[in-house]
Amino acid sequence: MNLNWLLAPPLPEAVPCQRLLYQRLRAAILDGRLAAGVRLPGSRQLAAELGIARNTVMFAYEQLVAEGCLLADRQGTRVATLAVAPSAAVRPPVWPALARRASLAESPVAGPELGAFAPGVPDVANFPFRAWRGCLDRAWRAARPRHLGYAAPGGEPELRAALAEYLATMRGFRVHPAQVIVTAGTQAALDLCARLLADNGETAWVENPGYPAARTALAMAGLALHPVAVDSEGMAPTATDWRAHPPRLVLICPAHQYPSGEVLSLPRRLALIDGVRRSGGWVIEDDYDSEFARGGPALPALFGLQPDAPVVYTGTFSKTLYPGLRLGYLVVPEALAEAFAGASASLARSGQGIEQMALADFIQRGHYTTHLRRMRRLYLARQQALRAALARWPGPETGIRGGAAGLHLVLTLPDTLSDTEVVSRAAERGVIVRALSRYALPPMRCNSLLLGYGPVPEAQMSEAVRRLRWAMQPA
Amino acid sequence: MNLNWLLAPPLPEAVPCQRLLYQRLRAAILDGRLAAGVRLPGSRQLAAELGIARNTVMFAYEQLVAEGCLLADRQGTRVATLAVAPSAAVRPPVWPALARRASLAESPVAGPELGAFAPGVPDVANFPFRAWRGCLDRAWRAARPRHLGYAAPGGEPELRAALAEYLATMRGFRVHPAQVIVTAGTQAALDLCARLLADNGETAWVENPGYPAARTALAMAGLALHPVAVDSEGMAPTATDWRAHPPRLVLICPAHQYPSGEVLSLPRRLALIDGVRRSGGWVIEDDYDSEFARGGPALPALFGLQPDAPVVYTGTFSKTLYPGLRLGYLVVPEALAEAFAGASASLARSGQGIEQMALADFIQRGHYTTHLRRMRRLYLARQQALRAALARWPGPETGIRGGAAGLHLVLTLPDTLSDTEVVSRAAERGVIVRALSRYALPPMRCNSLLLGYGPVPEAQMSEAVRRLRWAMQPA
Repeated sequence: MNLNWLLAPPLPEAVPCQRLLYQRLRAAILDGRLAAGVRLPGSRQLAAELGIARNTVMFAYEQLVAEGCLLADRQGTRVATLAVAPSAAVRPPVWPALARRASLAESPVAGPELGAFAPGVPDVANFPFRAWRGCLDRAWRAARPRHLGYAAPGGEPELRAALAEYLATMRGFRVHPAQVIVTAGTQAALDLCARLLADNGETAWVENPGYPAARTALAMAGLALHPVAVDSEGMAPTATDWRAHPPRLVLICPAHQYPSGEVLSLPRRLALIDGVRRSGGWVIEDDYDSEFARGGPALPALFGLQPDAPVVYTGTFSKTLYPGLRLGYLVVPEALAEAFAGASASLARSGQGIEQMALADFIQRGHYTTHLRRMRRLYLARQQALRAALARWPGPETGIRGGAAGLHLVLTLPDTLSDTEVVSRAAERGVIVRALSRYALPPMRCNSLLLGYGPVPEAQMSEAVRRLRWAMQPA
Repeated sequence: MNLNWLLAPPLPEAVPCQRLLYQRLRAAILDGRLAAGVRLPGSRQLAAELGIARNTVMFAYEQLVAEGCLLADRQGTRVATLAVAPSAAVRPPVWPALARRASLAESPVAGPELGAFAPGVPDVANFPFRAWRGCLDRAWRAARPRHLGYAAPGGEPELRAALAEYLATMRGFRVHPAQVIVTAGTQAALDLCARLLADNGETAWVENPGYPAARTALAMAGLALHPVAVDSEGMAPTATDWRAHPPRLVLICPAHQYPSGEVLSLPRRLALIDGVRRSGGWVIEDDYDSEFARGGPALPALFGLQPDAPVVYTGTFSKTLYPGLRLGYLVVPEALAEAFAGASASLARSGQGIEQMALADFIQRGHYTTHLRRMRRLYLARQQALRAALARWPGPETGIRGGAAGLHLVLTLPDTLSDTEVVSRAAERGVIVRALSRYALPPMRCNSLLLGYGPVPEAQMSEAVRRLRWAMQPA
């Protein structure tokens, strides 16, 4: 038997001879070139034929015997009968189908874009790099082995304490640090809420129009989505919604609805809590950008509005620091704190201990509130510049909504102009706008433009609006 | 009407007067102290009574009118009728129950502990801090706004390319970078696989004994777990397993089963792929620690063993760098790459762009393989020291298993000694060991000790073993 091909070129440089011999023998056995039962030459003989050390051959034989590819007996070494026929592998592979639920993941409305007028994007150019990297440096220097390990369930105690204090000042929450659960951002928080607070097949209300990624989180957790229409006072459930689709979960952005920009009125807040309490469900309050409300949030949060309001609250640093940080938090009633901390650790394995320590430091040194104050002014100036430019070059919109908080405005379009068409035409001119209709589920019909002013310097506002106006001209 | 209590002490320092007035008025309306219909004094009058500017009162009134708490008419201002009765809030809150599935999250076998003999924990004290922080610094300096945003779906291109190259060298994978999906670690990868590859209620095989957090990920994704017994050649499905519980998913650690330490034999690998292909399912190959195999993994990975093997592969940096980094990866067949990248972005919103760039740099500069080489030697020496110490002070164990890769050994105990009792007694002496029985599901019965030598310097091995031996003495 000529086995010289076992070490025939090409010989990969990085692979030692004994490993190469082993690999090629194994491949030949697996693909049937060396059939079951075939006797191989003795190690001394093969070594001589190949001009290599006997040990090298012995290593390969032993390894393959250990794996069950070869059998060693008193007569020598032969190829084993493998459990399955060698794979011919000439046909293209046929893969099993994806799960049906894989299709529940909604595509984002658009890719990750920056520039005028990408909504939901903070101005990371004004991020206080120096202060933040100073905090990171201190955290690395102070790091002990446990900070590099899986973080404590619920997050690093220092960050939970800093957040509890921050929320007391900014939002009036009276919460114990144990009620603050650090998450890898809002999506992770929604996923955790969906799986701990609702079972497969139960009903979750979502705002319509609403945020597709949030819908994805709830739908992929097995919940049946029930879209509830949003009007100028925020989510407006009807008697039928309550009766025919009593919610187990209600996901809502009361401070600044996304994408419509509306603020949930106080009567609606009270009615919502009352209704959800009756249906035995929970409200998830997604407070993704109230930090940028003018002079603080216009209304108290749902969380803590009443002592027994069944509300969990989620906040994020994606808009206030930068999205890629991947840190956010949940605030839950005391009775739920332990279950949430435990499940978050076993579902997601917590981590980012260094970043958590740095963030606690960043908050405690006052860098966070300083940054927020500065950005609040900056975003307000940008919103005003956007409004001024829209007024200077008037367009066909029938109204401008939103802006009480956050980073975007909404232009309501007349029926004669389609929001998706404006989006395409604006894109040709290098202007990013989003069509509100893309955020809506049937039967809701929207025809508005979403304009994010977050990342747009004032000096660029006029030019961007002029291009947008071009795209808004009747075709 | 005397409203002087509206600005009575204590007056919080940080809250401006107009906000305080607003807050206290609102609270009084919400809790019924100011009942529906009550007329408030005019703004001029109240300002005079409280000794403050009229504007301050007007601000508060306007805000509360906007919220629907007050009504303004020609006669002045009165308290509105709110949709719900004011909450008395004297009874303790009664919260809705958690979801039934919340109980599926298994508690970890023990808390995050460090020291002899915590398993699954790398030696972070030997982590190359300097090199890593150098890479982080470079990444921060080179960062562009997009690196601070939501990362590209599937991860930063640089990291995916570096991983594809690394896996080609170390594991013989021939994959395009698009087939590499960056995740926030193995738990996130398992969650993604479970939701994309299997529907609610479908069967997932898990190794028995196995890793509780992995079971949690699959159970919380709605899958029906079917435990399959592990023997000395790894997972050993019976004909009944295949017939009565055909798997949609098989989760397996072929290179070094956790916790038993066994290596899946080649015949078993081939039979597994063949069986899963017949059942129309997928294998998830969890390769959590094969980097520490002696001289490279003993056997080829399931992924790529055959061109049409229905296998997705997951790796992590938790053991090779540090757990808190929260970065891992999936490798999927080309046909699945787009679906996985898209779903990972919409389910988890990717991020950590800076850390991803730093890691790509760390790999490309050779720091990663240097570190692995060094740690491989170090862990091997520690394993040998542990074996030597166990031999020097012989104990009642009937065998030592594992150690072909990874960071732990398994001591099989005689029936006369209970693993959980040894664990408690060892804890009294400050020695951490884990009972294999805690990783098993019925009907599997295990009675062994899991000894992690990863974080134990050689010099401490003897002392730790002597304490362990004390705990292993018959009671």
